[in-house]
Amino acid sequence: MTDRKEFRDLADPADARDAIASLDLAPDPEEVPLAEARGRVLADRIDAQLDVPGFDRASMDGYAVRARDTFGADETDPATLDLAGTVHAGEEPDVAVGEGEAVEISTGAVMPPGADGVVMVERTDESEEGEAVAVRTAVAPGDNVMLAGADVAAGERALGPGTRLTAREIGLLSALGVESVPVRGKPTVGIVSTGDELVRPGEEVDSAAGQIYDVNSYTVAAAVEEAGGEPKLYPHAGDDYDEMEAILREAAAECDLVLSSGSTSASAVDVIYRVIEERGELLLHGVAVKPGKPMLVGRVGDSAYVGLPGYPVSALTIFRTFVAPAIRRAAGVPEPATATVEARMAAEERYGEGRMRMMPVGLTETGEPRSASNTSGGAASGDLLAYVVDKGSGATTSLVEADGVVEVPADTAYLAEGETVEVQLFSPDVRPPTVLGVGEDDPALARLLDAVERPRYLSVGSREGLRRLRDGVPDFAVTSGEPADSASDRGVDATELASYRREWGLVVPSGNPEDIAGLADLVDRDLRFVNRGSDSGLRTSLGNALADLADERGATRHDLVESIDGFELAAKAHESPARKVAAGRTDAGLGLRATAEKLGLGFVPVDTETVRVLANPDRESKPGVRDLDAALDERLDAVLGDLPGFDR
Amino acid sequence: MTDRKEFRDLADPADARDAIASLDLAPDPEEVPLAEARGRVLADRIDAQLDVPGFDRASMDGYAVRARDTFGADETDPATLDLAGTVHAGEEPDVAVGEGEAVEISTGAVMPPGADGVVMVERTDESEEGEAVAVRTAVAPGDNVMLAGADVAAGERALGPGTRLTAREIGLLSALGVESVPVRGKPTVGIVSTGDELVRPGEEVDSAAGQIYDVNSYTVAAAVEEAGGEPKLYPHAGDDYDEMEAILREAAAECDLVLSSGSTSASAVDVIYRVIEERGELLLHGVAVKPGKPMLVGRVGDSAYVGLPGYPVSALTIFRTFVAPAIRRAAGVPEPATATVEARMAAEERYGEGRMRMMPVGLTETGEPRSASNTSGGAASGDLLAYVVDKGSGATTSLVEADGVVEVPADTAYLAEGETVEVQLFSPDVRPPTVLGVGEDDPALARLLDAVERPRYLSVGSREGLRRLRDGVPDFAVTSGEPADSASDRGVDATELASYRREWGLVVPSGNPEDIAGLADLVDRDLRFVNRGSDSGLRTSLGNALADLADERGATRHDLVESIDGFELAAKAHESPARKVAAGRTDAGLGLRATAEKLGLGFVPVDTETVRVLANPDRESKPGVRDLDAALDERLDAVLGDLPGFDR
Repeated sequence: MTDRKEFRDLADPADARDAIASLDLAPDPEEVPLAEARGRVLADRIDAQLDVPGFDRASMDGYAVRARDTFGADETDPATLDLAGTVHAGEEPDVAVGEGEAVEISTGAVMPPGADGVVMVERTDESEEGEAVAVRTAVAPGDNVMLAGADVAAGERALGPGTRLTAREIGLLSALGVESVPVRGKPTVGIVSTGDELVRPGEEVDSAAGQIYDVNSYTVAAAVEEAGGEPKLYPHAGDDYDEMEAILREAAAECDLVLSSGSTSASAVDVIYRVIEERGELLLHGVAVKPGKPMLVGRVGDSAYVGLPGYPVSALTIFRTFVAPAIRRAAGVPEPATATVEARMAAEERYGEGRMRMMPVGLTETGEPRSASNTSGGAASGDLLAYVVDKGSGATTSLVEADGVVEVPADTAYLAEGETVEVQLFSPDVRPPTVLGVGEDDPALARLLDAVERPRYLSVGSREGLRRLRDGVPDFAVTSGEPADSASDRGVDATELASYRREWGLVVPSGNPEDIAGLADLVDRDLRFVNRGSDSGLRTSLGNALADLADERGATRHDLVESIDGFELAAKAHESPARKVAAGRTDAGLGLRATAEKLGLGFVPVDTETVRVLANPDRESKPGVRDLDAALDERLDAVLGDLPGFDR
Repeated sequence: MTDRKEFRDLADPADARDAIASLDLAPDPEEVPLAEARGRVLADRIDAQLDVPGFDRASMDGYAVRARDTFGADETDPATLDLAGTVHAGEEPDVAVGEGEAVEISTGAVMPPGADGVVMVERTDESEEGEAVAVRTAVAPGDNVMLAGADVAAGERALGPGTRLTAREIGLLSALGVESVPVRGKPTVGIVSTGDELVRPGEEVDSAAGQIYDVNSYTVAAAVEEAGGEPKLYPHAGDDYDEMEAILREAAAECDLVLSSGSTSASAVDVIYRVIEERGELLLHGVAVKPGKPMLVGRVGDSAYVGLPGYPVSALTIFRTFVAPAIRRAAGVPEPATATVEARMAAEERYGEGRMRMMPVGLTETGEPRSASNTSGGAASGDLLAYVVDKGSGATTSLVEADGVVEVPADTAYLAEGETVEVQLFSPDVRPPTVLGVGEDDPALARLLDAVERPRYLSVGSREGLRRLRDGVPDFAVTSGEPADSASDRGVDATELASYRREWGLVVPSGNPEDIAGLADLVDRDLRFVNRGSDSGLRTSLGNALADLADERGATRHDLVESIDGFELAAKAHESPARKVAAGRTDAGLGLRATAEKLGLGFVPVDTETVRVLANPDRESKPGVRDLDAALDERLDAVLGDLPGFDR
């Protein structure tokens, strides 16, 4: 680590963009069949090689005539012409139209020789014997005929280079009979992930050996596709110089751009750094942007190289900001039209690190009428609030909790609550959730949300959920606990949409081998216990039950808590303690009867508590909230009936 | 035709939407590998099946310790701990941390047994012998450790049904180790094209037999893909009942929806109508919408069926309005965010047909600052003008000249010039052209446009081009003719960006077999001639040359014109007369020396004329116009040098 050359001055983000723009990612054009050309970008101009239509074509059902034979004809004085034959669409005419003659013709059929106009069938009467037709109108030469080349003439410029092929262009190319088209190549983007600990999804992960699934490779690969590139995953490179060098060189030889998504290990970064210095060219190391300070830009062999940061949200943010535009440019794909939306900051955000910040935010609609600046286009159907997520935790859940990024200039001291910011969406497919909920982790609620389109629910616990509801960002909060813990008692203005009860207690191994009878055993015996976090309503219920037990014993709650081995071991989700029981890592865990039965474990009941679904009063008319309300009305009983220990 | 039951009352468009919505297009869900899941829509809720991380994980490089051993340590009074070993990321710890001990640990590594916190390396000093480490700070239990499940806990709701999978969701699913995911099936959409005259692109078309390329099948197939469906093309069905029935039944058995894109032949419609009546159910025949009045909605077997109109723009319009939403719903794909933009009508459009009109329009940006209602999102970078295209011509070129559709209610009498309308784009990929030109068809200009991004050029001829420039819609016009025909003389305010000369004359077969010496031969001899259209500047030049000849002879221009066989035979594009010469269908055609040489034909020079590129003075600062101007500056000489008979 000591001999690594440091770029002491972090590069300006604009210089990083320039450095990436200076790398040539554009592959050679290729020829693709028309049926596979949708979404591709024309590499060359296409001139029409034939006339459309290729022949003088009847544009009405009727009779092909010599126009001069109809001069003077009208309803009262029809011209009578001899019927010389018939031409259908798709047939070569086997008759000609002589003076005083007519030929029956279908729309789309070839005009027979001699004819220069078509009388529509509605203005004619065929004789009963079918030997003559009375024409009750005059036509001019060219009437109801589309001349050869009138739609597209051979030699005309049809489509220019750089045209993106949508259904419309495919249609025009079909008319020209084009079988395949020259299109811009998709840049091939090699993705090298580093770190011995990474395992591909679908393979077995050995947690005891510190293995984790490779998140960045798949996230970045999907983002490369979204930008119009062709991702190619390379096997995990460890921290070994020779192995890493071999993989980077192979990727560089096969790809237009190589990305490595950060290893968490500093030594792997060192190895990459050395490979680039020795086998390529380092343009830039370190950019004054948060996240992404350790970003590398350079060349390996003939390929461009960019090193992305390690945290998934950081990697995606840096990719989107710096790399995706270069891939789109190389592929000839335009910037997505709705890549940005305007939003108001949900809360003040202080910032003072002196470098540009790419701040990940989640979005939620207030449901209020849209402001004038937001009436057209964009993903918003209401005024948008942006709230900051992933304050550096590196959590993968932030990937789906953040909708986009706000670029905060280096000289910003803070963003005020309500301040308008421009949010760069992670992809144009991103839509803000229809409804945003926060609070207690509860299995009945999780099932109910399946009936709501595009909800977002953040399991932050009852206490934190109520706090956020009071601050006005979410649409609803879910709490659990006793009636005395209700929202109104905590000064939160909320509308109760529904409430139900759930039975809680101690989840123990199947058959209850330690013969645990209740909370007293946790206090009095040498048992390992796993609790929930302090924001969880379930933990508050446990605390209250322990307080009651303390009262009975004339002790303090603190005394009892101190005697429980693992009371401070807070597990994240409602099933987590039970799963630790199932894994044999603890004797008992705080949990629900429903969880114990689901996981085939034993259960020692302690009490029931009330779960409340509380709406933000300002959002009751928001469609997502109404959908949730309807789902509660229609499905809650069925959901509770399915979950042991749940009822009204 | 006589026994076809007529639905006398055309259905309301809303009823047509309801009828299509009543058809069940949703296929069964399917399981796809994660690497192919991007863009798909989850069919079921995904709960986490494991903890992320799966183990207590160091989140810093440093030393794993028992936190209580560091209590009280600070810079002046470090705690010295014995080094018990090392744990790297991806390794199972082979040491435990006892009292007074520390273990060197890498970011991402498994916390060794006994340790409950990590001291970051920057706050430590390892002894020279590597046997002990001095810790210059106190840590609390959990410091710099991410507990197992802290990111995602097993049992937590990760993603709900209906979630569209973008890079972000792919990332979360990777973290969960998911190999494949249950997604909504893509509705299979069978496309049956009717009409014996249709030929697939890439095959040989026999124009003499009235064959044309099948446009609608490929256009609709691409539009089906854009909407999230899986198109399937069926062989062309003729107008034969048995063949059509067999194909429709096969498609119905294999697809969720069958579309037939209109045959121009009325008898084919009759056959489809009968098959639906006999083998399925007809829900609706005829909708009060222009285009699309003959639209059919029903069922064939277990499949839904919709019959689209025959003209390509009409088929795409009806598909987009009525069918695409149903396909998206079945696929679970959200409405595209930028499917609509606001625009102002470029000219008054009268309408009074008493049924809703889906009016195809082209878009152009005025380059003026955007109005307040247009500042966010949307495809526009300036105020948009909408001009009506395809007034029922059925031309395939309208496909690329129209950007979208304005829904005009049935009770509308007219849309005023400048009136704001909402344009439904044909697809979210549609972008208005950067620059819109109109006027003379010219090969030098066609090449120059290759250097401009996304231009649109309508070859309407010099005269019509000037008229449109005067009306203020296009950004530039191109004229050809003599200086006396210049724009200012016609009362058009325009800025000349460039001018050049092109040599014109008579294009004759190679070797000039008829030994044509000039225009006099056309007048005096029995030769067949093909002219350009009356809006063409080239034709005006020809007229002027004939007037000069008439003067010499003391005749009138009219006399001379009357003596030329084919003077009124107007071919569309600048190469068209020459191509008729090449095909042996005429003895001479009006054209350019450049065209004659390109096609290997003979050329009888008559004169040169001036081509002018004239900008709309209000648009000179528009980026697309500036790009054109730059292309003229930089490339015109090279382009003229490549084209015989062209110079300044």
